[in-house]
Amino acid sequence: MTTTEIAVKMIFDRWNASLKNCNDLLNSLSDETLQKEIAPGKNRGIYLLGHLVAVHDDMLILLDMGEKMYPELYEPFLKAADKATDQLPTVAALRDCWNKQCEVLKQKFDSLQPTDWFQKHTAVSAEDFANEPHRNKLNIIITRTTHLQYHLGQMQLLK
Amino acid sequence: MTTTEIAVKMIFDRWNASLKNCNDLLNSLSDETLQKEIAPGKNRGIYLLGHLVAVHDDMLILLDMGEKMYPELYEPFLKAADKATDQLPTVAALRDCWNKQCEVLKQKFDSLQPTDWFQKHTAVSAEDFANEPHRNKLNIIITRTTHLQYHLGQMQLLK
Repeated sequence: MTTTEIAVKMIFDRWNASLKNCNDLLNSLSDETLQKEIAPGKNRGIYLLGHLVAVHDDMLILLDMGEKMYPELYEPFLKAADKATDQLPTVAALRDCWNKQCEVLKQKFDSLQPTDWFQKHTAVSAEDFANEPHRNKLNIIITRTTHLQYHLGQMQLLK
Repeated sequence: MTTTEIAVKMIFDRWNASLKNCNDLLNSLSDETLQKEIAPGKNRGIYLLGHLVAVHDDMLILLDMGEKMYPELYEPFLKAADKATDQLPTVAALRDCWNKQCEVLKQKFDSLQPTDWFQKHTAVSAEDFANEPHRNKLNIIITRTTHLQYHLGQMQLLK
């Protein structure tokens, strides 16, 4: 293995392990528990779950891998704060979105070769990318992994 | 830049940005606020701060970069749960540890070249490392970055 291949493997190992941690946690929490706030006056579990699906959906765009699966989640879970609307999908529906999305992302990610991950993502111009080669697809995986862990630490408080 | 150099840069960018997020948060929280629980019955801010220092201290060992700076923090902040003892250092003392440690880690990390990070860490044998080249120093940075973000998400609840 080259150092590049090793680096890509490590980053995906961390992404996949973080998703597994999140799945294990979600499977241990009831729908009712996910309706609760993680701390008094803070976001509810349902909001964090919807937020993660909305953020991961946007990865498809950034990685040039097609359309969003659930564009309707952008408004309530990314643009708006929690409790801004009472028109949210059910926890059961969001779990379903999450599970299907995890499968689709995995399938799409697995189809790329290590060096493909060093290509530019869609939010950077070719000109800027020439000077900033770190603004690549792999960096999207790195930043979304830390984003996931940030909210995982919060959702863990529902246990 | 080679893809290896780009990968190392991205991983350190995320580590450094996470430390900066943590510093900004710590600077915005009073010592009194850090004495509070992040959620009812959960860890206090002071425990999370001490826990991060203790975990980062252990990175010095894993990365073969010398002795721990604060070995006395292992017992209360890693081995023991929060509130197991009332003999903790003050928040002010822990802030000082954190700041000094961040400087030392930065200095030591800056002294390595990109390819040095693909050498084995100290918790893996040379034999195992031959088959598992991802168990390297860079992986320690990746996993501690997600660990930091996990607890950062929790500490943020004190705002």
